[in-house]
Amino acid sequence: MKATLMYSAGDVRVEDVPDPVLEKPTDALVRITTSCICGSDLWPYGSMPAEQGPARMGHEFLGVVEEVGSDVSGLKAGDHVVAPFAYSDGTCAFCREGLHTSCVHGGFWDESGQQGGQAEAIRVPLAEGTLAKLPETDAALAPSLLTLSDVFGTGYHAAVRGQVEPGKTVAVVGDGAVGLLAVLSAKLLGAEQIILMGRHKARTDLGREFGATDVVAERGQEGVEKVRELTRGEGAHVVLEAVGARPAYDQSVGIVRPGGTISRVGVPQYEEAPVGFGSLFAGNITLTGGPAPTRAYVETLLPHVLDGSIEPGKVFDRSVGLDGVPDGYRAMADREALKVLVTP
Amino acid sequence: MKATLMYSAGDVRVEDVPDPVLEKPTDALVRITTSCICGSDLWPYGSMPAEQGPARMGHEFLGVVEEVGSDVSGLKAGDHVVAPFAYSDGTCAFCREGLHTSCVHGGFWDESGQQGGQAEAIRVPLAEGTLAKLPETDAALAPSLLTLSDVFGTGYHAAVRGQVEPGKTVAVVGDGAVGLLAVLSAKLLGAEQIILMGRHKARTDLGREFGATDVVAERGQEGVEKVRELTRGEGAHVVLEAVGARPAYDQSVGIVRPGGTISRVGVPQYEEAPVGFGSLFAGNITLTGGPAPTRAYVETLLPHVLDGSIEPGKVFDRSVGLDGVPDGYRAMADREALKVLVTP
Repeated sequence: MKATLMYSAGDVRVEDVPDPVLEKPTDALVRITTSCICGSDLWPYGSMPAEQGPARMGHEFLGVVEEVGSDVSGLKAGDHVVAPFAYSDGTCAFCREGLHTSCVHGGFWDESGQQGGQAEAIRVPLAEGTLAKLPETDAALAPSLLTLSDVFGTGYHAAVRGQVEPGKTVAVVGDGAVGLLAVLSAKLLGAEQIILMGRHKARTDLGREFGATDVVAERGQEGVEKVRELTRGEGAHVVLEAVGARPAYDQSVGIVRPGGTISRVGVPQYEEAPVGFGSLFAGNITLTGGPAPTRAYVETLLPHVLDGSIEPGKVFDRSVGLDGVPDGYRAMADREALKVLVTP
Repeated sequence: MKATLMYSAGDVRVEDVPDPVLEKPTDALVRITTSCICGSDLWPYGSMPAEQGPARMGHEFLGVVEEVGSDVSGLKAGDHVVAPFAYSDGTCAFCREGLHTSCVHGGFWDESGQQGGQAEAIRVPLAEGTLAKLPETDAALAPSLLTLSDVFGTGYHAAVRGQVEPGKTVAVVGDGAVGLLAVLSAKLLGAEQIILMGRHKARTDLGREFGATDVVAERGQEGVEKVRELTRGEGAHVVLEAVGARPAYDQSVGIVRPGGTISRVGVPQYEEAPVGFGSLFAGNITLTGGPAPTRAYVETLLPHVLDGSIEPGKVFDRSVGLDGVPDGYRAMADREALKVLVTP
């Protein structure tokens, strides 16, 4: 079958690889119907050294179960499924608490020994805990259903961890797919004022459609002042940080209200950052967030997608076949495309 | 009157200063009946340069109102009061939310232009918002009532911000007065397992009396392993960090459970610290805390003190008059004394 491999920064290839097979009784084989490229794939696309490659790529997919191992219950060939970006057993203490990304037996697709979603098929470990069953639906819903894999669940996680609720002012840093779906999530959770920080008009327009009440294109100190103007000089109760770069962290610290929360879901591209008296401590700022246990949110978010009241799939603005994946990476890296759908 | 001044690191003097007078209609004059030395006073005692001195010292006190300005209601001469370590107007958006340390008109005693509690009397700004009235009680209750100024309210703030509740495992880093009262606070909020990290037996014994179920004397990686052993290998749901030094932060990161919370109330003596994938992010760790709005907790904690069910004043293990204050600093710095009560 065909699968996507990243050899090093900027070098993505679609190649023939062996068809996946069941390796453990807890595995399932899934034929992939829809996949996509993630903003987080752009971090290795920008910097991965050749000695870490070739790496199978893709951690978001919809598919149809082809075969299940002998220990898998509740799933059978023909079932439509969505996979979260982390696999998990669904039974450990952390999974039971809804923190599937800390599953004691789980892991991430991008890790060595695992396969990727930008492919024709995939072996899914811990299939019973990992995969969420979907009803058969109109194909037009596929893009929105696919966002449950990662970007919608991740935006929602940011909002949940940030304790967004009615009456709170929310600022979203970043107008990528996760940022835009953090806006949608904040709206779902009842926020009335949602300030989107971003400078790409097509994206911020979609942000407004998702519920943003204000857009701030300025960055740095100018951006801070603009957000403060919009919030009676106080700052935002909740900042949803959907970038992962250090300037986005600093921006978040600048615009959060005393007593407020910065909820991060952009994978940090830094290890150390200011947390002392001059940044977080004096104002009793809470810093939270992490890899989203998107498996935990499928059942909550799915009804909103199925009833058509929201359309998170609008974050996809380009669609390619598998052979178009390398150009899809390029287009996202060049900011030509917001998020690229892949139909094997 | 006599007041305590710090001239530079290690140089604390009790000197005659002008009697305080009302300066603003929102002021009150308070005759101080009980005060104390704070663990946080030891930071300038260890490092304050002479050009920052002389500074009035002391931010915890009980007293009797002597005179109030024309704009002060609800307080009159003769009232017994406790002062939190921050003054605040009690009416701004932050005070109304219980975040008095972010009051838009408030501040800290140690700031320039303000007086200190290690003295015979003090001018209290924004008296109506700042001071909490106390019933007249037996003098034996004074030490416990005084802890409402800072150390008890601060330990309680750590526990509240950390969302301590029944069923959660709590670890407390630091066996100073705040750490011990964080233990007591965790107990009040229903924690069943409370692990105290500290190595001074007299202190950890008091910690056990306050509710610690386990004591871990080891530090660093050894301490991490010990806490993990005590928590099924998972770590603590909530870590209350009551030191403020960078190693205490690192210790907290090492022992917190995925999905858990580090709540800091020790004033950070560092600005940058690890918050990236390898420390907070991967495990969805929440970092919270800050200067405690102890004014917010007086009404909650006072009944427990008055009914004798708890005795937070046990953290005082030495008592001096004003003239003994310099030696009190030395004794605390040398760890001869846990916390020194001052009776002017």
